[in-house]
Amino acid sequence: MRSPTASDNLEAALERAVARFDDGSATCAQIRYHLGFEDEARRGKRLRSRLVLAVAEEEGGDPAAALDPACAVEIIHEFSLVHDDIEDGDRLRRGRETVWSRFGVAHGINAGDALCAVAYLALLDGTVTRPADRTVAMTRALHEAHLAMCGGQARDIAFETQTRVSIDDYRAMAGGKTAALFGAACELGALCAGASDERARAYRHLGRAYGLAFQIEDDVLGTWGDPGTTGKPSGSDLARRKWTFPVVWAVAGPPSAARETIAAAYARGAALDPPAVAAAIASLDALGAREAALEAARAELDDADAVAATFGIDRSGAVRAFFQRALRRIA
Amino acid sequence: MRSPTASDNLEAALERAVARFDDGSATCAQIRYHLGFEDEARRGKRLRSRLVLAVAEEEGGDPAAALDPACAVEIIHEFSLVHDDIEDGDRLRRGRETVWSRFGVAHGINAGDALCAVAYLALLDGTVTRPADRTVAMTRALHEAHLAMCGGQARDIAFETQTRVSIDDYRAMAGGKTAALFGAACELGALCAGASDERARAYRHLGRAYGLAFQIEDDVLGTWGDPGTTGKPSGSDLARRKWTFPVVWAVAGPPSAARETIAAAYARGAALDPPAVAAAIASLDALGAREAALEAARAELDDADAVAATFGIDRSGAVRAFFQRALRRIA
Repeated sequence: MRSPTASDNLEAALERAVARFDDGSATCAQIRYHLGFEDEARRGKRLRSRLVLAVAEEEGGDPAAALDPACAVEIIHEFSLVHDDIEDGDRLRRGRETVWSRFGVAHGINAGDALCAVAYLALLDGTVTRPADRTVAMTRALHEAHLAMCGGQARDIAFETQTRVSIDDYRAMAGGKTAALFGAACELGALCAGASDERARAYRHLGRAYGLAFQIEDDVLGTWGDPGTTGKPSGSDLARRKWTFPVVWAVAGPPSAARETIAAAYARGAALDPPAVAAAIASLDALGAREAALEAARAELDDADAVAATFGIDRSGAVRAFFQRALRRIA
Repeated sequence: MRSPTASDNLEAALERAVARFDDGSATCAQIRYHLGFEDEARRGKRLRSRLVLAVAEEEGGDPAAALDPACAVEIIHEFSLVHDDIEDGDRLRRGRETVWSRFGVAHGINAGDALCAVAYLALLDGTVTRPADRTVAMTRALHEAHLAMCGGQARDIAFETQTRVSIDDYRAMAGGKTAALFGAACELGALCAGASDERARAYRHLGRAYGLAFQIEDDVLGTWGDPGTTGKPSGSDLARRKWTFPVVWAVAGPPSAARETIAAAYARGAALDPPAVAAAIASLDALGAREAALEAARAELDDADAVAATFGIDRSGAVRAFFQRALRRIA
């Protein structure tokens, strides 16, 4: 019999966190469905929780003490996905029906709200005790990330009707929607390992930089990615008229025929049809938007390296290595 | 110039709690709109926050120290209303458009999520410091109520397609959806005043009993209430096929023609038209459902009195008096 891996422990902790609050209503089954407990192939990559564990280990913390915060961060991510799927009208996630598509919008909103509470209770009412002031700091950091995610999502929703989006707008959106929770994952990992507030803040900065790099790479994959790897058709972000980094960068650039092609397609305010997607990709290629995006992602990684060096965090490079595996193309 | 009242202080604290987290996204304006900051006539009764203040005062706490928890409880209530309005498809609240009706479903869900984070940050990152273990206890109590509210709401959503609802089902629904937050309001008021965990738990029990009484009275008002007082047409809960206490009680009773009228109307699974509403009200009257509901509410008040006597809480009777004012007809 093989011994349990870190991944086994994490899955078991996630199951416990949900089971602890099973009240017999329909919500618990909906949560279990979304989290993929009944269907291993439908689970997320658990990237954010594994990041909590990686930082805690790097800081010399007890791995068992990192499981509750890891669960809390992962469940906040999943809560945001349940609501994002409703907000974006997405019926499929990880190859099967989304919660709202399967159980209706009302249950979908409500199950997301329940996941949110379960996440914080995993931290507040978890299996490992820690000094109360540390629990307060961790809970506050996670709520701040949660609020930043809402701010980023509000910007992303607003983008749907905008005809111009600046690089600063994009960074505010992705910084909230994606990077904030990566930052909180690193911060909680450090805090649960007993790191100082200053080190924890430095880890938050590190996580945010990695998170922005992650989002920009995700944008590149959503435009040029291999459907076999990403699970989405190539150009899918363009078809949905998403203001991804390559598009924002291209439209913010100096006037050119290629820029005008993309700007005009996005100015129509509707989804792009396949010929428009093909023309937009050709224009992005002509402008060098892919290279510009990868360069911007690399700049975030450089920022992360500078933070690590300045504050003497991630000394072993394990957190950087974690992201090198997560960022498949650029790190 | 008049000096500021407790109500002025509460409104100012709510404004501060929201302003502290203004990130420049559309969300903050949506939150301000929902909370009625720009339109005094559209604010809620702030019942739950005033309950926190009443219990804190009863327990000898510093009123200023009770403002952050009072805001947190009130904002959690408002968060649940923003999402409930989407789940129920309600376009009007307090005489004007609901958040989702005004800003769209996506922003509505997201603004509710942001309100949720703002509520907890009011507690965790508020203006008054307190021992960290007390903050943990208060945050946990509020998250537990938040989760119970989701369980109650899941039951209420499920009721929409059920043809039978037992009294126990109703109590589980209303106990979660309404009573849990009244319980947490009392618990947080006691905790912020420095009461023992045991006293705080007794206050939670007290608040839950009052909360159930409040919900049952609300059901009576939604069926027989004066539209001039309630702001809703008489019979509005029946028209929407809500499983209110009087309906649940009547359908759970012994067979009779009157019972069959109501059961048959609800078995059709659709909204009731005006003649069906009139017939259902006549049947409820014939069965004595109004008196049965008021009796059930009074039993909750008796339970509250017993808890208060057993644990020696609410010695001055101020919390009871608070509810006598809130419960207009039965207390």
